[in-house]
Amino acid sequence: MPILARPLSERKRDGGPLSSGEWRRLMADYAAGDVPDYQMAALAMAICFRGLDREETRALTDAMLRSGATLALEHLGKPRLDKHSTGGVGDKVSLVLAPLIASLGVAVPMMSGRGLGHTGGTLDKLEAIPGFRTGLSLAEATRQLESLGCALIGQTGEIAPADRKLYALRDATGTVESIPLIAASIMSKKLAEGLTGLVLDVKVGSGAFLPEPERGLELARTMIDLGSDHGCPVVALLTAMDRPLGRACGNAVEVEESIMALRGEGPPDLMRVTYALGAEMLWLAGVVRDRDEARRRMEVAISSGRAAEQFQRIIEAQGGDPRVVDDPGVMPEAPECEVFAAPRGGVVAEVRPREIGHGIIALGGGRTRVDDVIDPAVGFVITARPGDVVKAGQPLATIYARDAAGVVAGQAALASAIVIADEAPPPLPLIVYRVTEAGVEEYDDG
Amino acid sequence: MPILARPLSERKRDGGPLSSGEWRRLMADYAAGDVPDYQMAALAMAICFRGLDREETRALTDAMLRSGATLALEHLGKPRLDKHSTGGVGDKVSLVLAPLIASLGVAVPMMSGRGLGHTGGTLDKLEAIPGFRTGLSLAEATRQLESLGCALIGQTGEIAPADRKLYALRDATGTVESIPLIAASIMSKKLAEGLTGLVLDVKVGSGAFLPEPERGLELARTMIDLGSDHGCPVVALLTAMDRPLGRACGNAVEVEESIMALRGEGPPDLMRVTYALGAEMLWLAGVVRDRDEARRRMEVAISSGRAAEQFQRIIEAQGGDPRVVDDPGVMPEAPECEVFAAPRGGVVAEVRPREIGHGIIALGGGRTRVDDVIDPAVGFVITARPGDVVKAGQPLATIYARDAAGVVAGQAALASAIVIADEAPPPLPLIVYRVTEAGVEEYDDG
Repeated sequence: MPILARPLSERKRDGGPLSSGEWRRLMADYAAGDVPDYQMAALAMAICFRGLDREETRALTDAMLRSGATLALEHLGKPRLDKHSTGGVGDKVSLVLAPLIASLGVAVPMMSGRGLGHTGGTLDKLEAIPGFRTGLSLAEATRQLESLGCALIGQTGEIAPADRKLYALRDATGTVESIPLIAASIMSKKLAEGLTGLVLDVKVGSGAFLPEPERGLELARTMIDLGSDHGCPVVALLTAMDRPLGRACGNAVEVEESIMALRGEGPPDLMRVTYALGAEMLWLAGVVRDRDEARRRMEVAISSGRAAEQFQRIIEAQGGDPRVVDDPGVMPEAPECEVFAAPRGGVVAEVRPREIGHGIIALGGGRTRVDDVIDPAVGFVITARPGDVVKAGQPLATIYARDAAGVVAGQAALASAIVIADEAPPPLPLIVYRVTEAGVEEYDDG
Repeated sequence: MPILARPLSERKRDGGPLSSGEWRRLMADYAAGDVPDYQMAALAMAICFRGLDREETRALTDAMLRSGATLALEHLGKPRLDKHSTGGVGDKVSLVLAPLIASLGVAVPMMSGRGLGHTGGTLDKLEAIPGFRTGLSLAEATRQLESLGCALIGQTGEIAPADRKLYALRDATGTVESIPLIAASIMSKKLAEGLTGLVLDVKVGSGAFLPEPERGLELARTMIDLGSDHGCPVVALLTAMDRPLGRACGNAVEVEESIMALRGEGPPDLMRVTYALGAEMLWLAGVVRDRDEARRRMEVAISSGRAAEQFQRIIEAQGGDPRVVDDPGVMPEAPECEVFAAPRGGVVAEVRPREIGHGIIALGGGRTRVDDVIDPAVGFVITARPGDVVKAGQPLATIYARDAAGVVAGQAALASAIVIADEAPPPLPLIVYRVTEAGVEEYDDG
């Protein structure tokens, strides 16, 4: 007999908790199709209003985790770390960080997602590399982790199927914006990777999923608690998404910028966020004494070419064209390429991530629905940064488009994204807070 | 293209209103199966938290009303009144009131429901009469209203199908307890009867669907506003359901008590509530100058036998055995009949309706699920009233059961329902408030 869902929904509606056993049965029965979507939808909406306490969030996460398979990686005999970002525009950190950290002897079983709405997705970016296959099975991923210490994969059907089903339902019913549900969804997948530690990049600012820093902190704390309750230490950095990260925004253009970063030629903001997150990974892995040592080891991995070689080996192992690391021109190139010029002189007051993300969708490089096919070649490279003093007519960005209509859409998107004014408000600090189980601290990487 | 439900759900979640056009399209698409249950369930849960304003409640009611057919009764050339009760235990007022008011020249197109949970249903009671058919089509009901001025029917598939579907969904998802959703559901059906006026009996007290008088008042006001916005004047009485109404609680036993009431031999509390509601109906119908005249006309209708004859004609027209009015013994009788005696001396402090309702279910005379088959013969006749001084061993009630196990269940139910103590708290006034568009007044029927 499946569990009776209505009394659970009523109890949550009235503010009461569900027990661990109830969460476990509910999610198992839901994954098996024995609890109908409409009952789960009503419960999800009640959770949006009432929340879940720490024990319920733990139990839900655990129930979703147990609904599927997990990676068993203890036999690798080394620390296993991943990084998760809540998503942004121009956020290609995963592409740089995974090979960089793997080249330093830490296993990185990285499971990523696709872009949806204004934010991009790591899987879409990787698939801009001709032949790159993200749909590895868990067995394939395990073999690659044994041979290369890194695999860049998507959430397979084997991992947390209850989460997959609930996430699709939440997306259809307006019940996405609940911190415990977001945290449980992310962590049920991450904990399935069999990690010894996890670093979170929680974006804040206008382009973030949760723009207010207070909400970002709450999400970070919830995920840190979840990690702690499952024996997986978690550190979170809150980083700025009131402007894009780096210059490239799109798919192929971001792969190209990531390769530049692995060669030590990345833009400063991208490098700073990558090193900050990487230092936390190495520290959690126990392979460095402190942040300075971590920084030095990452710099050597890059300057020696080891990090870029690691990326090349991963690309080759996953069916991609490894020449991309030496020649980004093997990726699809956009037929149209045009400059966006400053419409007036002044100071760049804002480079709005949401407008840029929607511009990428307008160019065909993003998704509004999960089954949209994307064009990897299109996008923007934006050199203007908030605070830059510019003259009228000065080039601020380059548009990569499929056709003339795309160029027009790109011009319109940049015209609304790049705000030039007489004065610029101060942007968010690039790295706002560092959050651990011990508490919140302002971030200072010297 | 069906309406996109997710943005509506998100807007309601965030406290915003839906427009009239959105409600109309949403409910039409939902009735047509183009909006899935899971999206409607999430919206219903958001409404439980955020409520609906007056205009939204009106628009939802209107949308559900328009999803089906309505009775067109203008050609009857007389006032058309109905009474709705929010449900209770022993509440057989509809069975008395419909023939009584119809015998006074007012059309009564009465659409009732079935029992579910601890409260009984008029349709189940009527079907205790051998042959009685409540499933009339709208065409049959119209013909009977033309010939007899009264039809006692259920919600057909033709009436407000969007409400039927939403009600079943709310029942399955823990989203029943929302005053605007309750009010819209009731009123979408009542307004489909083509009424010139409606009287509401909103029960309050421990056995009521909404026990707290404040919530009952809110429901009454919401339904009065809905009537007013649809051109149908509504008067509500809040009446006591902290004890059963009358003595008989069950199906056949309640029909028998109703026939006694139509013969002028009903218990005083049942008569008082019946006359009070009937006076409001006659007053709204415009056929009496005041409550005193209404009372006199009802008393004459009963003492002259006209009201009982009217019931007999309705029973005959709907396929029932008309001899029941003279001989209740034509109804199924319970094989087992046993007295419940006072376990101690003292004062009757409580006769709890919920416990009695659950006792009827235990005897087989009620439903916990909509497809349960009920036994019309079983039930209780409870002579003890709150405030009665009783001696140990004194008979307080009679149990009518199918078998010895039923007798045991009935004894247990009455033992928990009838509380004997040293002192009795004051019961609720039988009629607590009268509510009209003009406001709330305490009720005094002299």
